[in-house]
Amino acid sequence: MSNTKLRVLPLGGLGEIGKNMTVVEYDGSIVVVDTGLRFPTAEQVGIDLVLPDFTYLRERADDIEGIVITHGHEDHLGALPWILRELGTDIPVFGGPLTMAMARSKLDEHRLKETDLTDVTPGEKLELGPFDIELVHMTHSIPDMMAVALTTDLGTMLITGDYKFDQTPVDGKPADVTRLAEMGREGLLLLCGDSTNADRPGFSPSESVAGPGLEAVFGRCKGRIVVTCFASNIHRVQQVIDAAKIHKRKVVLVGRSMRKNINIGRMLGHIEVPDGMLVQPREARDFPDEKLIIVSTGSQGEPLSALRRMAYKDHPQVELHQGDTVVFAATPIPGNERAVNDTIDRLYHIGCDVITAKDAPIHASGHGYQEEIKLMLNLTQPKYVMPFHGDHKRIHLHAELAEAVGVKPENIFKGENGLPLEIDEKGARFGKPERAGMIYVDGVDIGDPTDVALRDRRMLSADGIFVVVATISEQDGSSVADPEIIFRGVPYSQDAEKLLGDIRESVNHSLERAAKDEIREIDLLQQLLHDDLAKFVYERLRRRPMVLPVVVEV
Amino acid sequence: MSNTKLRVLPLGGLGEIGKNMTVVEYDGSIVVVDTGLRFPTAEQVGIDLVLPDFTYLRERADDIEGIVITHGHEDHLGALPWILRELGTDIPVFGGPLTMAMARSKLDEHRLKETDLTDVTPGEKLELGPFDIELVHMTHSIPDMMAVALTTDLGTMLITGDYKFDQTPVDGKPADVTRLAEMGREGLLLLCGDSTNADRPGFSPSESVAGPGLEAVFGRCKGRIVVTCFASNIHRVQQVIDAAKIHKRKVVLVGRSMRKNINIGRMLGHIEVPDGMLVQPREARDFPDEKLIIVSTGSQGEPLSALRRMAYKDHPQVELHQGDTVVFAATPIPGNERAVNDTIDRLYHIGCDVITAKDAPIHASGHGYQEEIKLMLNLTQPKYVMPFHGDHKRIHLHAELAEAVGVKPENIFKGENGLPLEIDEKGARFGKPERAGMIYVDGVDIGDPTDVALRDRRMLSADGIFVVVATISEQDGSSVADPEIIFRGVPYSQDAEKLLGDIRESVNHSLERAAKDEIREIDLLQQLLHDDLAKFVYERLRRRPMVLPVVVEV
Repeated sequence: MSNTKLRVLPLGGLGEIGKNMTVVEYDGSIVVVDTGLRFPTAEQVGIDLVLPDFTYLRERADDIEGIVITHGHEDHLGALPWILRELGTDIPVFGGPLTMAMARSKLDEHRLKETDLTDVTPGEKLELGPFDIELVHMTHSIPDMMAVALTTDLGTMLITGDYKFDQTPVDGKPADVTRLAEMGREGLLLLCGDSTNADRPGFSPSESVAGPGLEAVFGRCKGRIVVTCFASNIHRVQQVIDAAKIHKRKVVLVGRSMRKNINIGRMLGHIEVPDGMLVQPREARDFPDEKLIIVSTGSQGEPLSALRRMAYKDHPQVELHQGDTVVFAATPIPGNERAVNDTIDRLYHIGCDVITAKDAPIHASGHGYQEEIKLMLNLTQPKYVMPFHGDHKRIHLHAELAEAVGVKPENIFKGENGLPLEIDEKGARFGKPERAGMIYVDGVDIGDPTDVALRDRRMLSADGIFVVVATISEQDGSSVADPEIIFRGVPYSQDAEKLLGDIRESVNHSLERAAKDEIREIDLLQQLLHDDLAKFVYERLRRRPMVLPVVVEV
Repeated sequence: MSNTKLRVLPLGGLGEIGKNMTVVEYDGSIVVVDTGLRFPTAEQVGIDLVLPDFTYLRERADDIEGIVITHGHEDHLGALPWILRELGTDIPVFGGPLTMAMARSKLDEHRLKETDLTDVTPGEKLELGPFDIELVHMTHSIPDMMAVALTTDLGTMLITGDYKFDQTPVDGKPADVTRLAEMGREGLLLLCGDSTNADRPGFSPSESVAGPGLEAVFGRCKGRIVVTCFASNIHRVQQVIDAAKIHKRKVVLVGRSMRKNINIGRMLGHIEVPDGMLVQPREARDFPDEKLIIVSTGSQGEPLSALRRMAYKDHPQVELHQGDTVVFAATPIPGNERAVNDTIDRLYHIGCDVITAKDAPIHASGHGYQEEIKLMLNLTQPKYVMPFHGDHKRIHLHAELAEAVGVKPENIFKGENGLPLEIDEKGARFGKPERAGMIYVDGVDIGDPTDVALRDRRMLSADGIFVVVATISEQDGSSVADPEIIFRGVPYSQDAEKLLGDIRESVNHSLERAAKDEIREIDLLQQLLHDDLAKFVYERLRRRPMVLPVVVEV
């Protein structure tokens, strides 16, 4: 067995923030840790979601012993429905009870009923093929976050998932530093740790600071209060509810995911709501403003979220007005700044007061800062380190932290998606790159990013489209009807009739030339029309719209 | 004359950051202060630039006595070519010498030669119709920034433009507080002040702090240095050059606007470059890395900028490598965060070290903070206050600052684009809203945002397009060729042949139905094909692509 290699292949989450997914291989068997997704950027026009390219697993589906999910956030869990649908719904999935409840709800929405989800509690041992697996309780911005330890004959590796060392978590259950220290004493082979906050010095504030912060802010509010935060941040919502109780206000939950997550959280005992505290949105009007706190989705300025709709005076149940205070108990994820600022500005325009995490201590990050990353390294004393969950900058900074606590530089591996780290008894090194990247969810289906449809949409969105229809005789190729020219989305300010006339003339010229040169094959004729028209349009409009020639033979 | 109203009509810059433009009217005459533009957001697909809607001025072009530009930044100057082109190149334009030089360069690029630009120096008096105008020297992140005082029989109003009270500016010329204080003593009627940093407490740091900051950073760099900042921030570039001199490095200017602005700045004496200091980009290879500083455009991650191209290993002259340090002497403008972060991450991937304004004091904002806004209010002692240059949030905060220094709440006007403030001897109040908003620059032409082309492009970019061509007989309306179906940008994963076959069948059905119902008019037939196909496609793909039916009669 000493020749067997441990392979750690990240399919997502390295060189980027989001869509975390890792393949761990040993002796022909595979365990997948996390199946996350990302949200598209503005350039990814018409795309709904971005998933890790899991082509590598398609041929190896039979070798997958199981999928382990660290926690219920979209960037660790979100791709699960597509992966099970494509690779087989019989692949067993493991995770904490809240994580599995959120997974089940997600799979239900995708009508994937016959799946195999198993709740795992911290400390419980799992055997998956050659892997002994143990989940270690950690703290994060969602309950039930667990690091994954995978043990083979070569030793133990730990994938931390997202974590912070919250010493005073809201549920009173700090990260299991004892177990981490034990692993360190036994000698950890490899640590794959969260790099998200590798650029922040110091130690992250505890989630518990948000409670008194919210309570103080609520105390200053005269009218109605709207609090927005991530719907999965169940402990944050708990603290809003606790503060509401102190100020004798009722709580209204608004937004589908907020209601869903708080329901799941209540069922599993992660959140306690006093009887009679919750009010239905449609009953909220029966209460005076100063007796209400609305807890809403939309902290990221998402277009269809409840808060965004309130800000644009388009929410069916909540109409904001002067005197309301909107509290952002979340910070914008990079890329969402503009959407969040837009929402805030609409709220000011309505006359609301707005409180953000810059104004009061009402938010704490779920990811450990530099001192916590160092603490993790010192606790687990890994031989090898491969920073996870970060763009190249954060991976670089995490590597510097590892060096600072004494990990040998040659044992630190700054990886990339698709680049497997291979470890055997002789040492560790990067192997041959495997296919990795993105696949897009476009409606209900998934596709390649090199997808023609997306490329076409980018082109269409830039300069629009010209369609030219030429009708020619089957006998001699002569034009039997005036060419039809239609354009959409093309910017122009010239006289449309004249422009169309000129284009028609240019098309007729092309057709005559084709007839003279005896170009009769439809493909060639279309190519010729395309090239001529594209040139003509560029010369006239200095634009490169898509040109679509259609030749009909009659 | 006592019945004559002063009207201050902002056409841009209120309720937004950017495209500042104000119309000031008195006794039938108009002076325009600033003609700025904005850059499009990601949702404004295919749009190049956003200008203020100046429809209001089209019918009043003859009443315009002149345009006064406060300084050379795009958000105050950039729309000038379009405005002169549309309203008349004979409208006189006034501003500081650097501002006018930048305007001239811009107008030249638009081939507007016969324009009337006049350099104005601070203190010089201008008479434009009923307005006595005086420019007041201020400090900002570009030299030659001047506030505009407009005096009529009713008193003096001041439009501050963008300013800070830099006590130690790089050129040794602080803002003319003496003149501002005089105006205050004489009694200012109305202050329209910059609100950009109304959310920042305290006093902004002086531009002079960036020099020692850059010098210290450069001292720690072993290899080549790339510094990026706004090309118009001539004093920042001066400080880079000064620090380069201390560290005995040559300076290479990269990027078209960087070279252009520094040229203009040198000609006008705003920047001093020692002889032999500048090296051409193509000569840079002759110097060792540790002897070079490259000053580059691209601090905002702009797609075609020099730095972005370097980061993507696509720059013709500069190839970055491990050991290079890239210094961002600018902070991202809201909305640019993702592009800047992308650029930074590519640089880390190459192996460069990256220093930003978070790491060292190498940047200072050009806009005064809260204490400076209060100082402006206290110096000028205005009767009425109308905050300018800010989204609703910042306008609201500026209004709070005005109240804090003792301006009566009823004399503070929180305005909006298109809402004129009217002042006469009886008092001040908002008048009837005028048309204001955006117009888009789409290539070389300008258009309305409700423009069909843009709406079409949004639709095309979301779901693509289906084109269906039906060829029917002129005699009896029967189909004489199989319908042609072409689609582009439509996301689908079904078998294309089968999908096309089914669609063709559906189109044939529609044609048969039309023939039976004797629908022969092309418009009606196209409408029917459109509705039937859109319905069919939505049922099959759950998408709403644009559907473009073409009926050809032969």
